[in-house]
Amino acid sequence: MPASPAVEIVPLGGLGEFGMNLMVVRSGDDALIVDCGLMFPSAEHLGVELILPDLSALDRLGTLHGVLVTHGHEDHLGAVPWLLTHHSLPVFATPYAASILRPRLKGRLPGLVDPLVELNPSGGPCRIGPFAVETFPVSHSIPHCLMAAIETPEGWIVHSGDFKLDPEPLDGVTTDLEALRTFAERGVLALLSDSTNAEVPGFTPPERRVGPELESRIREAPGRVFVTTFASNVYRIRQVAEAAVRAGRKLAVVGRSFERHVELGLKYGLLPLPAGLRVPVDAVGALPASEVVVLVTGSQGEPNSALARLALDRHRDLSLEPGDRLIHSARRIPGNEKAIQRVFNHVVTRGGTLVDARSGLLHVSGHASREEQALLLRTLRPKHFVPIHGEATQLAAHEDLALSCGLPRDRVHRLRSGDRLRFDGGRATLGEPVPVGHVFIDGTTDTLAWDALRDRRRVADDGLVVAVVSVGGDRRRRPDPEVLLRGFAHEDADGPLLDEARERLLELTADFSREEREDEGVLRGRVQQELKRFFRRRTGKRPLIVPVVVEF
Amino acid sequence: MPASPAVEIVPLGGLGEFGMNLMVVRSGDDALIVDCGLMFPSAEHLGVELILPDLSALDRLGTLHGVLVTHGHEDHLGAVPWLLTHHSLPVFATPYAASILRPRLKGRLPGLVDPLVELNPSGGPCRIGPFAVETFPVSHSIPHCLMAAIETPEGWIVHSGDFKLDPEPLDGVTTDLEALRTFAERGVLALLSDSTNAEVPGFTPPERRVGPELESRIREAPGRVFVTTFASNVYRIRQVAEAAVRAGRKLAVVGRSFERHVELGLKYGLLPLPAGLRVPVDAVGALPASEVVVLVTGSQGEPNSALARLALDRHRDLSLEPGDRLIHSARRIPGNEKAIQRVFNHVVTRGGTLVDARSGLLHVSGHASREEQALLLRTLRPKHFVPIHGEATQLAAHEDLALSCGLPRDRVHRLRSGDRLRFDGGRATLGEPVPVGHVFIDGTTDTLAWDALRDRRRVADDGLVVAVVSVGGDRRRRPDPEVLLRGFAHEDADGPLLDEARERLLELTADFSREEREDEGVLRGRVQQELKRFFRRRTGKRPLIVPVVVEF
Repeated sequence: MPASPAVEIVPLGGLGEFGMNLMVVRSGDDALIVDCGLMFPSAEHLGVELILPDLSALDRLGTLHGVLVTHGHEDHLGAVPWLLTHHSLPVFATPYAASILRPRLKGRLPGLVDPLVELNPSGGPCRIGPFAVETFPVSHSIPHCLMAAIETPEGWIVHSGDFKLDPEPLDGVTTDLEALRTFAERGVLALLSDSTNAEVPGFTPPERRVGPELESRIREAPGRVFVTTFASNVYRIRQVAEAAVRAGRKLAVVGRSFERHVELGLKYGLLPLPAGLRVPVDAVGALPASEVVVLVTGSQGEPNSALARLALDRHRDLSLEPGDRLIHSARRIPGNEKAIQRVFNHVVTRGGTLVDARSGLLHVSGHASREEQALLLRTLRPKHFVPIHGEATQLAAHEDLALSCGLPRDRVHRLRSGDRLRFDGGRATLGEPVPVGHVFIDGTTDTLAWDALRDRRRVADDGLVVAVVSVGGDRRRRPDPEVLLRGFAHEDADGPLLDEARERLLELTADFSREEREDEGVLRGRVQQELKRFFRRRTGKRPLIVPVVVEF
Repeated sequence: MPASPAVEIVPLGGLGEFGMNLMVVRSGDDALIVDCGLMFPSAEHLGVELILPDLSALDRLGTLHGVLVTHGHEDHLGAVPWLLTHHSLPVFATPYAASILRPRLKGRLPGLVDPLVELNPSGGPCRIGPFAVETFPVSHSIPHCLMAAIETPEGWIVHSGDFKLDPEPLDGVTTDLEALRTFAERGVLALLSDSTNAEVPGFTPPERRVGPELESRIREAPGRVFVTTFASNVYRIRQVAEAAVRAGRKLAVVGRSFERHVELGLKYGLLPLPAGLRVPVDAVGALPASEVVVLVTGSQGEPNSALARLALDRHRDLSLEPGDRLIHSARRIPGNEKAIQRVFNHVVTRGGTLVDARSGLLHVSGHASREEQALLLRTLRPKHFVPIHGEATQLAAHEDLALSCGLPRDRVHRLRSGDRLRFDGGRATLGEPVPVGHVFIDGTTDTLAWDALRDRRRVADDGLVVAVVSVGGDRRRRPDPEVLLRGFAHEDADGPLLDEARERLLELTADFSREEREDEGVLRGRVQQELKRFFRRRTGKRPLIVPVVVEF
């Protein structure tokens, strides 16, 4: 009997860290990619706006036949445009995820023939190069999510995507355990499964549970209600809208990402809004305070979001009045706690009140908790198990769960990004790892550094700008802003350009309110935005901007 | 009748932010200070190690007669050495807090006559200049904590300190509500009360509740157990020790701050350790794994702590083996979540297991929750109420609580740092605020910048060093470390000194393990430490070091 071609899985990101999910599945020289995501930086990543996986390892992993995108979240599809800059590949995605990707690809790779192949959001078979693939719909916190099974000569490899087992989802699309059980009869070689909530016991509450609490919190508010949540959670938007209807209020939607997802929700019939419910944001002022709900972006305290601007009284159309209420219907993503708390502080300082997850079920996770993860394991009965999508502690907890579900020790594999797990005759072995890493990108709001992946010397090429801004104390004794440049190849680099940059910062900071001056996150965000625009306009360069705030 | 002298309170910190508690109480030209704390920086505060309140406003607040320190936590006494540099004042503190302050004052202000006046930890009267003061013992998470009442011509002003109403504390010292009720008959003008947990409903569980969970988690562990907590929580140390005894294990204590508090706990009879329980850290290796408990510093993920070094296999005496367990018996202070999670990741990657507050009652707060705060309000029946010690949202929640306890709207005062609240004939009015601010300090581990408070131009004087370190990717293609200087007045500033600094960084980073390279917090901590030492040794200067990590 001829040896079957080697089958292996190679995660290039998403293991041991949050975000950047990317899994390569190989059979001999053929390969496909499941998900290609990015990561958002924390305060420590100075000047950086996006973090991508280093995709150069893909060059060593055989012939790529396509990318399967399990759903529309950034940590699963955000790096696809970078991937397509260097690899000509079809992208398989549900209509919702395709609608998120398509305009980005068109705008940024204008010569590219549309590579998107839309998958049925209700699941079914498809073919990616030589691979037979089966997809299954799953519940999560954005519409149109899939679990995917890929056929290999060693058996089926199942990638869970992000999932939970919500038994009563708003769109009626449950994770169909019965279909998965039937499928499992074909023989599952390996299950690669979402570990996000492996440290959380029990069963994640259904999305629907949030509705009654939202409604009573909106109903009891004396003034206007602002609600912030993750913009892509169309089900949450729907429940806010329904609560607004029942509380006799109109709904305004503020922030580009909310507008985009409301539009998509309407397009795909997932957001049945009664006629007359929505009002434009500039009509909010004319309505009685007790008749308004406003959805605002900024649940993670992002300094340039609609909510942060509102909280600092810097919003064009809205201002916060005493008696207004903010409902935070979201999780606090680790690393964002201080920025979120600062926005909350600004809100209450302006006389607003605050309601968040501590005072009732105002948010539920989109990820399966331990009992659901165990159910998936028992349903699919895989020969091998690989926890994916999580911090090292979450992967370890998921590993323990698989062991307690009866999988033998040598069939549960805790991988790190770059590891190669090879399957051969039912046994699994680790090959020589491929190099993995991060690529830091700034400037997403403007043109993208398309060559960032190959040209890793961007800082050396486009330079580094360190801006030191002093705040606090007595204005007359405060040092002026200082701007330092390195590796910045431009004729004006050390002359009038720097003076002009300092002047811009002086004007910018002179205009700050006391609250803005006291909010590190806001300060750094503004300084970065200002200098980015300045250097692009004046030099055409996109240096890495590192804002340093020193208080005096 | 002659007008009585004006009475006012002026908080210079601690309102609307975490830390830096400082309250000035004035009567006419006489003033005393309650607490003088500092704040620890978050990742956003580049290069900064300590944040102090700007004490220059004290010059405008009359004749200072002394400082009353309610307890030994840094956010209540950490800035006292800076205060005493410019003001010659007696410092009133309980023996435990005095023992923390005394060596710092001796080491850093060697000419100073000991200014410490020890207060009875069981409370009682004392006199600070012209002020009669009554103190009351309260429960918290460090021994010897006081609530203080200060007599003024307008009535008594009560400052709660940090407190909770633990009814069964380990040292038997409860917050004595009956004594406070009796005292209240003298007439309380204003209560200034700890707001930390004003958003937390209910009653904070007693410290004692943590004991059984600690014991069972230690007992069931197959290998060595490492426990991390806040070093000053002597009661927690005692419970870990008792659990070790009952589980038949020895106890080693690692990290200077733990050693110090164990010593103080023994000195004050608060830590009854059976003979033979403690073993030195270098004896741990010789004991069977199942007979060891090790207390390690680093509950907040501090990159240079014993726990972080252990997790990265950089500890001199200890290493983590598969099967070892880490018990995190602490809260995750907002802003530290990512650093803590990274340490946890390193622990499980090394095969260790992790138990934290999510899996049982392994930590309780030291602060009163809402019901306790309400009890204090009802016990003291103050004419006026000022929530202190908290973020703006916590102050607002505490304000709401006071209103729901029946205080009238015009007697509940939400202040900001720098506000002056004046009491006159039972009425309260706001005066012109005094300027407040932060002073950033680095270099605590070395000599302190004693003049930092008056000389705010330290960055301009001693300069700024930005170190850009590239990690990840292919070593041959990675740019070398870059060091930028500004405002650094030294003859070698741009020549061989910089080359040497770059060389040091190159050596430092070449020695990093893969895990260290992937941990931003550790990278930045090491780079900062290295350059601080380098510039101090070579130039005698203490520039602000800003480490920037760029991944390639």
